[in-house]
Amino acid sequence: MVVQSMPDASPTKWHLAHTTWFFDRFVLQPLGLPAQRPAYDYLFNSYYDAVGKRHPRSARGLLTRPSTDEVFSYRSEVDARLADLEGSKPSLRAGLAAGLELGLHHEEQHQELIVTDIKHLFGENPLLPAYDTEVAARFSRSRARPATLTWHADAGGIKEMGHAAEPEFAFDNECPRHKVYLAPFAMASRLVTCGEYLAFMREGGYVRPELWLSEGFAWAQANGKHAPRYWLQEPSAEACQASEPRVFTLQGAQAFDPDSPVLHVSYYEADAYARWASARLPTEAEWESAANHVDQAFGVAWQWTQSAYAPFPGFRPLGGAFGEYNGKFMVSQIVLRGSSCATPEGHSRVTYRNFFPPSAEWQFTGIRLARDA
Amino acid sequence: MVVQSMPDASPTKWHLAHTTWFFDRFVLQPLGLPAQRPAYDYLFNSYYDAVGKRHPRSARGLLTRPSTDEVFSYRSEVDARLADLEGSKPSLRAGLAAGLELGLHHEEQHQELIVTDIKHLFGENPLLPAYDTEVAARFSRSRARPATLTWHADAGGIKEMGHAAEPEFAFDNECPRHKVYLAPFAMASRLVTCGEYLAFMREGGYVRPELWLSEGFAWAQANGKHAPRYWLQEPSAEACQASEPRVFTLQGAQAFDPDSPVLHVSYYEADAYARWASARLPTEAEWESAANHVDQAFGVAWQWTQSAYAPFPGFRPLGGAFGEYNGKFMVSQIVLRGSSCATPEGHSRVTYRNFFPPSAEWQFTGIRLARDA
Amino acid sequence: MVVQSMPDASPTKWHLAHTTWFFDRFVLQPLGLPAQRPAYDYLFNSYYDAVGKRHPRSARGLLTRPSTDEVFSYRSEVDARLADLEGSKPSLRAGLAAGLELGLHHEEQHQELIVTDIKHLFGENPLLPAYDTEVAARFSRSRARPATLTWHADAGGIKEMGHAAEPEFAFDNECPRHKVYLAPFAMASRLVTCGEYLAFMREGGYVRPELWLSEGFAWAQANGKHAPRYWLQEPSAEACQASEPRVFTLQGAQAFDPDSPVLHVSYYEADAYARWASARLPTEAEWESAANHVDQAFGVAWQWTQSAYAPFPGFRPLGGAFGEYNGKFMVSQIVLRGSSCATPEGHSRVTYRNFFPPSAEWQFTGIRLARDA
Amino acid sequence: MVVQSMPDASPTKWHLAHTTWFFDRFVLQPLGLPAQRPAYDYLFNSYYDAVGKRHPRSARGLLTRPSTDEVFSYRSEVDARLADLEGSKPSLRAGLAAGLELGLHHEEQHQELIVTDIKHLFGENPLLPAYDTEVAARFSRSRARPATLTWHADAGGIKEMGHAAEPEFAFDNECPRHKVYLAPFAMASRLVTCGEYLAFMREGGYVRPELWLSEGFAWAQANGKHAPRYWLQEPSAEACQASEPRVFTLQGAQAFDPDSPVLHVSYYEADAYARWASARLPTEAEWESAANHVDQAFGVAWQWTQSAYAPFPGFRPLGGAFGEYNGKFMVSQIVLRGSSCATPEGHSRVTYRNFFPPSAEWQFTGIRLARDA
Repeated sequence: MVVQSMPDASPTKWHLAHTTWFFDRFVLQPLGLPAQRPAYDYLFNSYYDAVGKRHPRSARGLLTRPSTDEVFSYRSEVDARLADLEGSKPSLRAGLAAGLELGLHHEEQHQELIVTDIKHLFGENPLLPAYDTEVAARFSRSRARPATLTWHADAGGIKEMGHAAEPEFAFDNECPRHKVYLAPFAMASRLVTCGEYLAFMREGGYVRPELWLSEGFAWAQANGKHAPRYWLQEPSAEACQASEPRVFTLQGAQAFDPDSPVLHVSYYEADAYARWASARLPTEAEWESAANHVDQAFGVAWQWTQSAYAPFPGFRPLGGAFGEYNGKFMVSQIVLRGSSCATPEGHSRVTYRNFFPPSAEWQFTGIRLARDA
Repeated sequence: MVVQSMPDASPTKWHLAHTTWFFDRFVLQPLGLPAQRPAYDYLFNSYYDAVGKRHPRSARGLLTRPSTDEVFSYRSEVDARLADLEGSKPSLRAGLAAGLELGLHHEEQHQELIVTDIKHLFGENPLLPAYDTEVAARFSRSRARPATLTWHADAGGIKEMGHAAEPEFAFDNECPRHKVYLAPFAMASRLVTCGEYLAFMREGGYVRPELWLSEGFAWAQANGKHAPRYWLQEPSAEACQASEPRVFTLQGAQAFDPDSPVLHVSYYEADAYARWASARLPTEAEWESAANHVDQAFGVAWQWTQSAYAPFPGFRPLGGAFGEYNGKFMVSQIVLRGSSCATPEGHSRVTYRNFFPPSAEWQFTGIRLARDA
Repeated sequence: MVVQSMPDASPTKWHLAHTTWFFDRFVLQPLGLPAQRPAYDYLFNSYYDAVGKRHPRSARGLLTRPSTDEVFSYRSEVDARLADLEGSKPSLRAGLAAGLELGLHHEEQHQELIVTDIKHLFGENPLLPAYDTEVAARFSRSRARPATLTWHADAGGIKEMGHAAEPEFAFDNECPRHKVYLAPFAMASRLVTCGEYLAFMREGGYVRPELWLSEGFAWAQANGKHAPRYWLQEPSAEACQASEPRVFTLQGAQAFDPDSPVLHVSYYEADAYARWASARLPTEAEWESAANHVDQAFGVAWQWTQSAYAPFPGFRPLGGAFGEYNGKFMVSQIVLRGSSCATPEGHSRVTYRNFFPPSAEWQFTGIRLARDA
Repeated sequence: MVVQSMPDASPTKWHLAHTTWFFDRFVLQPLGLPAQRPAYDYLFNSYYDAVGKRHPRSARGLLTRPSTDEVFSYRSEVDARLADLEGSKPSLRAGLAAGLELGLHHEEQHQELIVTDIKHLFGENPLLPAYDTEVAARFSRSRARPATLTWHADAGGIKEMGHAAEPEFAFDNECPRHKVYLAPFAMASRLVTCGEYLAFMREGGYVRPELWLSEGFAWAQANGKHAPRYWLQEPSAEACQASEPRVFTLQGAQAFDPDSPVLHVSYYEADAYARWASARLPTEAEWESAANHVDQAFGVAWQWTQSAYAPFPGFRPLGGAFGEYNGKFMVSQIVLRGSSCATPEGHSRVTYRNFFPPSAEWQFTGIRLARDA
């Protein structure tokens, strides 16, 4: 629970401390409850400049103190203090609701990150250890055999997208609901499978620059990429031709399943695959328009769109530190839509905007194709 | 003409050889004229994978051979061979037109780069040398005193943007013409001035993270930024408060001119300035819609939009190597619109899409504000 | 026990597994006892090319598996198997002696590294945690008040240095015993104290290039050095003038003790201090010649010599994998002599040659001066 | 004359300006002659902290101004001012002698660097251009067929080494003359040839870690080394087996000459070759003792010793800025002895100590073997 496998990933203990601190700092302290562990503002602040300086992200794994026991104690204390508020005056409770709700959604995001970060850590270990089998089964690749890929036609025109007003929760970056104009297009009925992706590889997918964005091909060359992350292969391209790779999962190394959706691809790989398949990635507006008409929209893999992460017209960030939650990351990132097998129940919705840099592979990311009508 | 001051810039000699090679390789050789200097396919290919391997971009400054004289000879030869085609059969000449036209527009782009790259090189020299005065005056900052900034209101709705069919030339990335839906907005009547930007600096612009994108603030910190590139200042923030900086130009160091447009800002800086000014950067669709109604749209500074560089709906790259001209760069870059003081006459148009990474500063880039209606 | 704070340091668990593996691989397996955990040849091999490929040094902290419990089990198994050999035939036991003896000395070296690596890890934690107080007291800085520094004169001439033949143990790099010629010199009677080092700092020690080796000054500038590692200071030079720093120790942050020996200085700092003090560092031959005539030769701090780590005349590395133990590191390192407060009892001797790169700070390194007669 | 091919190399124009500045700053100005180009103290100071801040070494190639013509003018001016001093008072002339003599030896060192730096620059050019043929012939590899390698025996004992008192010139690092004790040894009668080195390569020299220092093997792997710099080979190890490589020289690419001495090897390669040949590199004391008894001591290739660059016992650097000439580099460098084909006439002597980091390849460096008696 203590080790950090790369700057983008965090130790489980840190996730636990940080989500707890989020309630402490943004729910309890604004009510006048004193900060009992002031050093935690430094240690467990992720990126809130409004709170102040913080421990460097890449050094989270050096925090062998506070111990895991101490962090669980902190959790219990904050839980207890939040519970104490239940009996408090209704006016106070009303003021709590927004912070609590955001805190819970925030924690759900970190629940998913805990899964992806453990997978990354285990994937760096030559022993390829398995995570607890029962839990890991939830994130298993095996799904029912996919139906034949068909294309859902969307006539386009003026559409509304984004989150409308309350009562349902949404992050600020999903707002406001607004109009867009879409040209007619078609959306794939399901995600790309491992078998389909292997065909791309066997046709030289990773060595044909004409299939790639220039930055993507440079990324693939610089990182010696010739398969998705967690595919276990002999290093030679020849070996790739001859046999199917094994795949590292949270249950350890597993046999290749051609029917399961390909996972852990970067934007660059998704884009190159789409070009090879004479298709393209959808825009996020197209995705949102068609999501209710296709399979595997949620609960399997985050789906790379071709849309850079940008503010919706009329976007207004939340006030105070919460304004840093989403808005300040709106450059150099790509929007992903849907949700993955690691997303907590109830955390998926059609307007949800996930975002990662185009080189990110350690999330449960997959490919859904689109094409012009 | 030989030195390369950074990987993104090229020596003048290289620009000359490369644009000449473009005609040789893509106009003459397809007609069956033999390649007379086959090594140039390696040395002076910029990024065309379809042509083959090439000299690393960052090592262009190591090519002290071929000499400048040899490159001029090459230029004369190619010019002569192109002139010889004039008297050839009409059918042949027709086939030439597309390549020639693209080659000329390509060369105009490099003419601008020669100016920006020389400015960068001279800017790295502690002597701050002046370029040829007569030529440099064309790129002078001094313009007439700007009118008061006003806001042009645009009612939005469904708009058409992008390049329509021929006969006028456009790059493939400007096509096809297509519909977009715009919410009502307002566009600034002119560019931001140096004086306005200095006010931003004096209110702590570079040290207030709440004004910046997260990536932008990290960039500013990592690079010790506290003013636009080419502003010459004492390194202390206090000095910035006390006096006006001098500015390095192609005529050498010059006195600060508060009325001239601020130049050489990165996207990060443009975005932070806009937030400080309670405004935002325009989208490229907004810019195109309003360009004919505002001042300084062309010929002063490229204007950062908030739009990531992406394909227009229905975009189809050109065939063959020309397909690599624009399409393969459509990630991690920001669109700039308009044109600059270094843009050749006749190379500006309302649909033109320039693009650079958000950290680029050495182009003549400026800031035009927009805001929601 | 799992976290790695920098590439040069290793997790405690790794040290335990590696020293155990050393007995397994180099004592038990050569006797024909089967390798029971073949993966450990990859995971816990430090640098023995003769054994084969190995886990990258900088990634030792990613090995959350095998667990600490498993490593302790491994330890118990190997201990038991070694104990079983006691009753075996005398001829067999004789063959064991050399490997066992080397393995024990090897383990003592790692015992010291465990202390230095934990100190480094804790020193990276903003909480500055204390190690177990009772144990840490052994490594306390507090010693009796040092006597006045005097100079031990050595008349030089032909001397013998290095380890002679058996029966006492020595590493191969201490052999053979050989003659050197020394000019007359004088050696300081004790180590440099924190108070003396603070005087160097207050006279601008870290900002006067004339006191430093060129590489050392560049190192100090690049790393923002203005005090020894583990001295806790305000970042401004002014603060350094005004008050004494606190010092991080294995017992946590402690008050400054001017009488205790300065610890955790790099070679560059030791060399600069010596130049400031109108002295120099001793050669290793001088150190060995004078060691029995001065105080604090052992058990306080490793003492930087001015000698690069090189083979003694006639040096022959051990055969097989043991030949990699010392010989292959004989470049770009500096010899340190003596031993430190973290060195296990019985591991010190006058011919012992420790070696680290000149930038190393995390060992218990100190300064002993010498000067020409 | 303007381009810099790597941080360690300098443009020819810079060498010319720097050596001229050396006379200006250290001979003329101390006489009270005014500095006529004060900016040159910043631009053309190499590493003299006593003079002040200076242009970064790695950015010397960005100085397209002052132009080459201006630098030649500067040269003429300084030459004229020095000539003017000839007729001056004898007392003044006496004061000049030391600075002038050092300046001339300094310039001879840069004359050699001009040759090595041009070779490096040309070697980075895919065209592999030839330098002026007549001049380059002086640095040709072709020498008379080497005699059979024999071993010169040296009985060792107490020896004197280093430079004695005047009248002959020597750098401060060659002083004082002092005694050392040498064990008996033998020195190879000539340098290692290309043919001998090729045999090392064909026996797997670059892929057998047991032949290398650990740092050397890591260097070879990280840099993809499988031959000396300037040997032109197909990248595969197989190709190396099948045919002889061509070699880049100042006359362009040349056929492989097995009899010529191997050049441009790093210390790591020299050390690995020696181990393969069951020999070792000499110490600098051994080299100096035997130099007058072997062939190719001077004028062919600098010869790596196994000695780190360190002060001789009793070493005292020169006063003032000249004290920075040699002493501050005495760490992390290896001594080379002899001289090379690029060393100016009259610049060689038996006590001369050249020094470079162990990874340096662009100097004319070769291998002379030694072994224990």
